[in-house]
Amino acid sequence: MEKFTYVRHSFAVGMIVQKFGGSSVADAEGMKRVAQRIVATKRAGHDVVVVVSAMGDTTDELIELANQVSPMPSGRELDMLLTAGERISMALLAMAISNLGHEARSFTGSQAGIITDSAHGRARVIDVSPGRIQEALDQGAIAIVAGFQGVSQDTKDITTLGRGGSDTTAVALAAALDADVCEIYTDVDGVFSADPRIVPAARQLKSVTYEEMLELAASGAKVLHLRCVEYARRFDLPIHVRSSFSNKEGTWVVKDYPEGADMEQAILAGVAHDRSEAKITIVGVPDRPGVAAAIFRSLADAAINLDMIVQNVSAAATGRTDISFTLPKTEGQTGVATLKKIQGEVGFESLIYDDQIGKLSLVGAGMRSHPGISATLFGAMSDAGINIEMITTSEIRISILCRESDLDRAVQAAHTAFNLDSDQVEAVVYGGSGR
Amino acid sequence: MEKFTYVRHSFAVGMIVQKFGGSSVADAEGMKRVAQRIVATKRAGHDVVVVVSAMGDTTDELIELANQVSPMPSGRELDMLLTAGERISMALLAMAISNLGHEARSFTGSQAGIITDSAHGRARVIDVSPGRIQEALDQGAIAIVAGFQGVSQDTKDITTLGRGGSDTTAVALAAALDADVCEIYTDVDGVFSADPRIVPAARQLKSVTYEEMLELAASGAKVLHLRCVEYARRFDLPIHVRSSFSNKEGTWVVKDYPEGADMEQAILAGVAHDRSEAKITIVGVPDRPGVAAAIFRSLADAAINLDMIVQNVSAAATGRTDISFTLPKTEGQTGVATLKKIQGEVGFESLIYDDQIGKLSLVGAGMRSHPGISATLFGAMSDAGINIEMITTSEIRISILCRESDLDRAVQAAHTAFNLDSDQVEAVVYGGSGR
Repeated sequence: MEKFTYVRHSFAVGMIVQKFGGSSVADAEGMKRVAQRIVATKRAGHDVVVVVSAMGDTTDELIELANQVSPMPSGRELDMLLTAGERISMALLAMAISNLGHEARSFTGSQAGIITDSAHGRARVIDVSPGRIQEALDQGAIAIVAGFQGVSQDTKDITTLGRGGSDTTAVALAAALDADVCEIYTDVDGVFSADPRIVPAARQLKSVTYEEMLELAASGAKVLHLRCVEYARRFDLPIHVRSSFSNKEGTWVVKDYPEGADMEQAILAGVAHDRSEAKITIVGVPDRPGVAAAIFRSLADAAINLDMIVQNVSAAATGRTDISFTLPKTEGQTGVATLKKIQGEVGFESLIYDDQIGKLSLVGAGMRSHPGISATLFGAMSDAGINIEMITTSEIRISILCRESDLDRAVQAAHTAFNLDSDQVEAVVYGGSGR
Repeated sequence: MEKFTYVRHSFAVGMIVQKFGGSSVADAEGMKRVAQRIVATKRAGHDVVVVVSAMGDTTDELIELANQVSPMPSGRELDMLLTAGERISMALLAMAISNLGHEARSFTGSQAGIITDSAHGRARVIDVSPGRIQEALDQGAIAIVAGFQGVSQDTKDITTLGRGGSDTTAVALAAALDADVCEIYTDVDGVFSADPRIVPAARQLKSVTYEEMLELAASGAKVLHLRCVEYARRFDLPIHVRSSFSNKEGTWVVKDYPEGADMEQAILAGVAHDRSEAKITIVGVPDRPGVAAAIFRSLADAAINLDMIVQNVSAAATGRTDISFTLPKTEGQTGVATLKKIQGEVGFESLIYDDQIGKLSLVGAGMRSHPGISATLFGAMSDAGINIEMITTSEIRISILCRESDLDRAVQAAHTAFNLDSDQVEAVVYGGSGR
């Protein structure tokens, strides 16, 4: 088995929260490998808190069991069921660590003081009271905590935090314990300037700011979930995204780039892409006050998450306009049905549903001080013969919509146009540690 | 699917605790069948609390996983791991009940207020505070509680109650909630006068007293565990042992036989047998004061549970004697090793280990007032050509040791000799309800 040593970072001996996902602990071998890494961290002198997800496909298997007994299981009982998954993995991980000669104690979300609201399946952390964790650390033990779960403040029922919940558990605990860093272990080396499967020359980022990471996550980058980054930003807690298979430094997610970083080259953090959205165009909408409001109110009432929205200039001759927006493909059917219900009332002509679209986003804090980013992007798309269908921008992001079949080429062209390819960048933008 | 109706007993509408074992909820079909039975009880007007074990082989599978990561898992972590099993089954059962249109809420042992000591793997219930269960019942819901588990009073760690723990959970909850009855559902119809696989003419008992049931359980009858019967006796809580596959009345375990029962025929409750013990004979023990004490002190220090003990009359010529005792086969190696360690100090000559023995026990409250039971038993054994190797008696039990290969014939002979065969008994010993 591979031996791990824990590489010291710029901060001194302190407290580290480490999060391991289900693929890292899918079987007994994985458990033992992760246990070695945890013990190496402890031996380097740190206090260690570990957050662990359910083993491999456990959660999916439990959902399948639930479906066998009930077509519509209640949220309370589904949460009770699913939290068994982390209970199993955390106890096994504690055993594997003890077997290496270090005391480890496992704690459920409830025992670890993860207090949430009562929204089963997507609960929000509203307080963290890690008294038992601190006590275990004070006694020299390694604390293992179940990810993804908590206990509701009002009903004392068990809750789950939804997708990416274990990352949120780790960051929330790290903030409450005043940890020096929250390490998120994953199957890639860190955050990249683009998806390396699409852009082989993509380079790993040494650092990325919270706001850039938020935009990247919202734009389709899957390495970290939005909620966990939001949480880290609120508490100014550094996240270190790194591989569970190596000792290499990963990517630090921090408040600001470290001083001395060559900001000239750090205009863009990266190029994100997203194939999960569809586009609906509402054709021939009467161009009267209140009509657009009625349309978007009905979509909001159906709890549909809109992303990009474009309203064409009204054709003066007809007094009608077209409105296009994007939404998750999974909500496409609901969106179309919702709009058809108000077609009579609103009086639009027809709907076009298009799920062959792709979204490309440039993200970078340097955009604020560097004009001309969009011009360069549009030029690159034009040179590559790619048609831009929609555009939206935020302070540090530009997103464009194109055909899904053009998306890979679009990402490659943008990556090259902004000199992000690793053979174009002599050195990473700053040396030293990520903070 | 078979339809269940709940058969009213002599008591009026009240509170019922029902316990279902792992084989009753081994898969989704089993869950649904059990859910139907629970809902039928609720529809008959009762408040219903259900205690459920882990599905089928779940516990064994979790133990296997633990062995893969650690040869000696800590008790705390093993308990944390194993309790995931009931968490899964109780959530699924609650879902299956909800799917039949009745509200059901699942509770862990900790949530149900099962407070134990800190002896992981074999914790004892020291208090039950079922506030959340009572609240759920008051709101009209069916409460589902994880069997086999609790939370330690001192450390707040999750504990398990050991073998038969779910029965104990059910009885403890029923006592704390002042339930009218605790129903233990199993794969047989109730308690029998002997194992029907050995004695086809064995008859199902309508009732049996706590003390008889304790003696039967201690003598090898497996239908109920000793601890759960002890608990029921302490709180005078009726247990109804019955089949999860039918609506038939099972066996009531109660304080006294109901008035009007024909006690003339109820001398014996039944014949139990046990193949799980081994016999150790210590040959040539010096017949001096303190020697036997030293031997049994060393066995007690090794936490070995002795059952029958016989010391032969000392042979005056040698000043030495033999001591024989029985112990669980699983503790046989430890027992021999423990004795060999003190052989020099004690000065006995040799050890004989014999695991080809069987134990037969007659149990019945009527023994107190009926002399001649042992004479009848010894006569029956003699007629059957069976050699009796050891004898012990208690107030309501006689146990004999014989060759394991003779045990089935011994049980059959005793059952017939005491007129217990169902074709010998015209009517069951008393009519009406079990109380």
